[in-house]
Amino acid sequence: MASNSFGTLLTVTTFGESHGPAIGCVVDGCPPGLELAPEEFRHDLERRATGRSRHTSQRREADEIEILSGVYQGRTTGTPIALLIRNTDARSKDYGNIAEQFRPGHADYSYWQKYGHRDPRGGGRSSARETTMRVAAGVIAKKWLAQRFGVVVRGYVSQIGTIVPAGFDLDAVETNPFFWPHAAQLDELERYMDALRKSGDSVGARVEVIADGVPPGWGEPIYGKLDGELAAALMSINAVKGVEIGDGFASVASKGTEHRDELLPDGFASNHAGGILGGISTGQRLRCSAAFKPTSSLRLPGRSLDIHGNEIEVVTTGRHDPCVGIRAAPICEAMVALVLMDQALRHRAQCGDVGEVTPRVPAQAGQGDV
Amino acid sequence: MASNSFGTLLTVTTFGESHGPAIGCVVDGCPPGLELAPEEFRHDLERRATGRSRHTSQRREADEIEILSGVYQGRTTGTPIALLIRNTDARSKDYGNIAEQFRPGHADYSYWQKYGHRDPRGGGRSSARETTMRVAAGVIAKKWLAQRFGVVVRGYVSQIGTIVPAGFDLDAVETNPFFWPHAAQLDELERYMDALRKSGDSVGARVEVIADGVPPGWGEPIYGKLDGELAAALMSINAVKGVEIGDGFASVASKGTEHRDELLPDGFASNHAGGILGGISTGQRLRCSAAFKPTSSLRLPGRSLDIHGNEIEVVTTGRHDPCVGIRAAPICEAMVALVLMDQALRHRAQCGDVGEVTPRVPAQAGQGDV
Amino acid sequence: MASNSFGTLLTVTTFGESHGPAIGCVVDGCPPGLELAPEEFRHDLERRATGRSRHTSQRREADEIEILSGVYQGRTTGTPIALLIRNTDARSKDYGNIAEQFRPGHADYSYWQKYGHRDPRGGGRSSARETTMRVAAGVIAKKWLAQRFGVVVRGYVSQIGTIVPAGFDLDAVETNPFFWPHAAQLDELERYMDALRKSGDSVGARVEVIADGVPPGWGEPIYGKLDGELAAALMSINAVKGVEIGDGFASVASKGTEHRDELLPDGFASNHAGGILGGISTGQRLRCSAAFKPTSSLRLPGRSLDIHGNEIEVVTTGRHDPCVGIRAAPICEAMVALVLMDQALRHRAQCGDVGEVTPRVPAQAGQGDV
Amino acid sequence: MASNSFGTLLTVTTFGESHGPAIGCVVDGCPPGLELAPEEFRHDLERRATGRSRHTSQRREADEIEILSGVYQGRTTGTPIALLIRNTDARSKDYGNIAEQFRPGHADYSYWQKYGHRDPRGGGRSSARETTMRVAAGVIAKKWLAQRFGVVVRGYVSQIGTIVPAGFDLDAVETNPFFWPHAAQLDELERYMDALRKSGDSVGARVEVIADGVPPGWGEPIYGKLDGELAAALMSINAVKGVEIGDGFASVASKGTEHRDELLPDGFASNHAGGILGGISTGQRLRCSAAFKPTSSLRLPGRSLDIHGNEIEVVTTGRHDPCVGIRAAPICEAMVALVLMDQALRHRAQCGDVGEVTPRVPAQAGQGDV
Repeated sequence: MASNSFGTLLTVTTFGESHGPAIGCVVDGCPPGLELAPEEFRHDLERRATGRSRHTSQRREADEIEILSGVYQGRTTGTPIALLIRNTDARSKDYGNIAEQFRPGHADYSYWQKYGHRDPRGGGRSSARETTMRVAAGVIAKKWLAQRFGVVVRGYVSQIGTIVPAGFDLDAVETNPFFWPHAAQLDELERYMDALRKSGDSVGARVEVIADGVPPGWGEPIYGKLDGELAAALMSINAVKGVEIGDGFASVASKGTEHRDELLPDGFASNHAGGILGGISTGQRLRCSAAFKPTSSLRLPGRSLDIHGNEIEVVTTGRHDPCVGIRAAPICEAMVALVLMDQALRHRAQCGDVGEVTPRVPAQAGQGDV
Repeated sequence: MASNSFGTLLTVTTFGESHGPAIGCVVDGCPPGLELAPEEFRHDLERRATGRSRHTSQRREADEIEILSGVYQGRTTGTPIALLIRNTDARSKDYGNIAEQFRPGHADYSYWQKYGHRDPRGGGRSSARETTMRVAAGVIAKKWLAQRFGVVVRGYVSQIGTIVPAGFDLDAVETNPFFWPHAAQLDELERYMDALRKSGDSVGARVEVIADGVPPGWGEPIYGKLDGELAAALMSINAVKGVEIGDGFASVASKGTEHRDELLPDGFASNHAGGILGGISTGQRLRCSAAFKPTSSLRLPGRSLDIHGNEIEVVTTGRHDPCVGIRAAPICEAMVALVLMDQALRHRAQCGDVGEVTPRVPAQAGQGDV
Repeated sequence: MASNSFGTLLTVTTFGESHGPAIGCVVDGCPPGLELAPEEFRHDLERRATGRSRHTSQRREADEIEILSGVYQGRTTGTPIALLIRNTDARSKDYGNIAEQFRPGHADYSYWQKYGHRDPRGGGRSSARETTMRVAAGVIAKKWLAQRFGVVVRGYVSQIGTIVPAGFDLDAVETNPFFWPHAAQLDELERYMDALRKSGDSVGARVEVIADGVPPGWGEPIYGKLDGELAAALMSINAVKGVEIGDGFASVASKGTEHRDELLPDGFASNHAGGILGGISTGQRLRCSAAFKPTSSLRLPGRSLDIHGNEIEVVTTGRHDPCVGIRAAPICEAMVALVLMDQALRHRAQCGDVGEVTPRVPAQAGQGDV
Repeated sequence: MASNSFGTLLTVTTFGESHGPAIGCVVDGCPPGLELAPEEFRHDLERRATGRSRHTSQRREADEIEILSGVYQGRTTGTPIALLIRNTDARSKDYGNIAEQFRPGHADYSYWQKYGHRDPRGGGRSSARETTMRVAAGVIAKKWLAQRFGVVVRGYVSQIGTIVPAGFDLDAVETNPFFWPHAAQLDELERYMDALRKSGDSVGARVEVIADGVPPGWGEPIYGKLDGELAAALMSINAVKGVEIGDGFASVASKGTEHRDELLPDGFASNHAGGILGGISTGQRLRCSAAFKPTSSLRLPGRSLDIHGNEIEVVTTGRHDPCVGIRAAPICEAMVALVLMDQALRHRAQCGDVGEVTPRVPAQAGQGDV
């Protein structure tokens, strides 16, 4: 499959450059009959959008989705759903001087090595602008999963630079601009980000996604594993450098007696595995997370080369987030939802619909969620 | 694509259960003319095999590869290469009592939920036995990469339980049964593993893979990113719970000024990115790693249920590694090689062969390897 | 892969309904550096367009292509090329009365059975309007094939109803509205079509496509055969009911001594195979053809049912071609070009670029073209 | 997807050369729980096998299937089913002299052009020996389709050289070695074939496949059309030069009023479309056919070249069918069954299982079968 498509049965193909005429996507494989209106995309696009708070980029993107196909009389028809957003706020002047420069930490150099010819405006195809369409596609997946299976997918930020949550309350996440699960730390975060912006530097972030209500049996063995697909989905997001399922790297230092989640009559005793065993969902809460590197677009100068091999100094004057990972929460959420919907469709293709085959066992009253 | 196949242009399809008649794979897409003999698989299969030392499982697998197709007069023909290994050392009695049991931490429960009907002998399809064929396929990829591009892919263990290397010497890796890059710690590791085996418990491990000689330009943007494919490849290995590229999760707490790898006339100043920017190789050393959870097969009893919902106690009496991650080094190596070869083929499909387009820029004398 | 995408390395994904806001496509995998401008699509879209002569539908489609992505400074960048055409001439009233009707010979019934919910306006997704984007994508493929390999792909009509060409002159094809290769028959065709239109009935057509300059070695064995891909590509066009390669069904009654194309020092002695042996190109002229059924949209009443099972009489009052096959010549041409470009990319992925490996043998002075 | 795999959700990957150690296939995606035993393959392999009568090749293939994986306690587990047949009757001496020769009408020349290095023994990978595994995989598909949906797929020969059936009785097909649907012509066929063999020449054949019981709604729009997939499947069989759905090329000369199948309260009035409209099944009998060229392996000498460009004369002394198309009936049947099962799985992935959504309309008492 071509490089700009994602998914096996629910396929999302995105297109568009940061400062080109438009960005868009084609969502192919959505079942017919799902209600869908343009305004349903607004909420998640807002969540992802820059300009949400003073801690994210001050560029204002007016992301108005147009549904070009696949929806008739307000419901999906089963044919491909094309979504389009015109790029309206592209200030090309901000980026004009970098056409022949390799910004350190950006894809300029590797794209140029690969393609020779590239669109440098705003990062072109390698810009995080592309993730807008992932969020849009994710809206469809989240709605379908919720309606059909009661699955709820939620993303939040679990680390910004060196700060980690001192408490955990999912309800707090959507009440603050940091997608942070502990409201008592908001002042601390504000101060941290203010100092960071002042310094001209940036930090990374960790985003976690949990999905509740996933029935047991989703996922495929070997190369189509649910965790393998999640890893590919999350790692494909700009700036992600690591992915974990369940306990992730903490598993390395753990003991087998601690890590294996015992199964009791009222459900699993724990959830170190993150809801996946052998690549297939267990019916527990799904837990995964992604590491975002600090943005490389800084007003602090960095050394680099231009395409002729000359030494240059790069300073980014455009509008950029000091912590790109913060607004990645809805992006990660979307990718997880897209993977889950794809796996749900694959599951019913091979094993029949839920209710026909699964679940087969004792209810999981306690899910051993960590 | 079906769940048991991997890769776009170099496709590996594996089949077989732990205690079925045989395991095998079909490698489709290998260029013609590559010399290939059955004995070339032996070294890597030995490296992966159980029984290599007293610290890995004492089960002896006589993994003799048979080449069923795709090779004529000792060279590949371009048609699919089928590899077969007969299962000869399957002691089914070891596992007979678990047909109706869900071993904690294993895929028994999730497979049963998904398929209803499953092969429980030795874990069936979910057994790490399947990874033998990944290693076999990886031998082909490693050879082609080395001959065609001089790419060298090497895996080593960089954490066992709580122990991390106190030094780093790649040459040491293949001289000890732990794939450990620091010879001075071997006694410590021996003692650690002996104590672990005595306790009946297990620990996890971290495996790192580096690839040298990867030309700039490999990888695809968006969903076919080199790092995305690596994440999927590594996460699809049994027991893996996390994947990192370059600095991985350490990127979260780092600053942008530190993390962005500056480009100097004699090459990159550092390699926090792990040799990938925007999903495409930079020409630097490729660095990635995987977290392996501790094996769940323990002689220490664990609580669980059987398929009827009865409470049971599970004790594993079979032969199992106290640290499965150790012999995963060659598996990770194989998966990275398969991803790289696939991407190399994809690259030359779209952008022409190396030499035609790439590299375009100043040589990278110093690669900024960490 | 999802149903609305086509191709392995050059992937075309189309979207859009006949009377929705727009139709479009995403062409993924095109090599970088190809010059491409919106006006280059005009010629082939005109060739396909209705309204070209009084023998095709009188509906005027103003098909103005907008390039949304993948092109920078007039050249492709290697990233996905999205093409968009707004639907401007949709007279929904023409079709309003058929929302609950199954037009005989149309996809109304089968779509309704499959999806339940469908867009009936102008046939919705099943309208031949979709083929506009195939033609657009084909423009890219034809240009690349011509520039890179000197391959020229040409389609013409070789049967309209019961009339077959009495002579063969490729140069005549583009000089008449029937894509007919024998100018002396134009009067006869005019009279035939006039009588047909008067009668209210329709006829089928046969379209042939030839490709010159295809190097030997394109195509893959077994399921990726060049002829297999051509068959899929042509059969996927609306109204096609048959596909032939080379002599096609005439091969059944032929003798082996006649059919096998002998190879002489100056090339093949004949070309019954149509330039493909074992699924791989021979370097001869590629020959294939498609059978188009007569359009089912007629002003002569047809019996049918509505979705409630009531008997109805269907009369099509909209604007429709009495022979849809005529303007299918550019569509078939486009599909053949897309298949060839995809195979060219696949070939160089596995076997290296042309010049590196092929051709290996005596030049084919005479190609034995039939 | 790689070239030796077929299908989207039910994927068949074949491997093996005519005179290599073995041929085999991996069937991935079969639902769990289907009863399957090695002896179930015997009947169809016999039907396809050479040596069935004196009118097919006298080579005796002992095609004993071994199930290597995917089946436990006699039922499929949902994991990949690997099937293997050892090549036992390979008389390599028969073919030794052709290693450097291009047999006219064979894939020798095109394979050599593509790969440079090829296995010439018995045609290597391009031998029809490969189709054995298609038949084997088809056994699984036919059984699943029959059990799950009551679908019955049957192939027969509808033309041998210039002879066409003078009557049609499906029950006759399996009672004669020609898969001929009219018993009264058997003497004529025997004489025809005897004369043909005496002459040393060969003829082509037409094979038709019908499928009864296919529910409405199978197939996908645009590029995943049921007819498009059938065309690819049939054209991918060795020696096929044409494919028709329903009336096929006869549609060209037909009128729209005749061709469009009217829908009456008791079902369709006719079936010119072959049970497919807009790429999706209508619930009528599915009808398709394939044209097989005459075999090129003849004892009558043919002119050709060797790899050095020398003129040679090729005479085939091996054992070959004078009409390869005859025993292609089970191969075509298998391919149609594989396509249908794949589409059935795709259908239930997107639209839910049969019974949940379809059928929605008046029963089709009369199906208008031609």
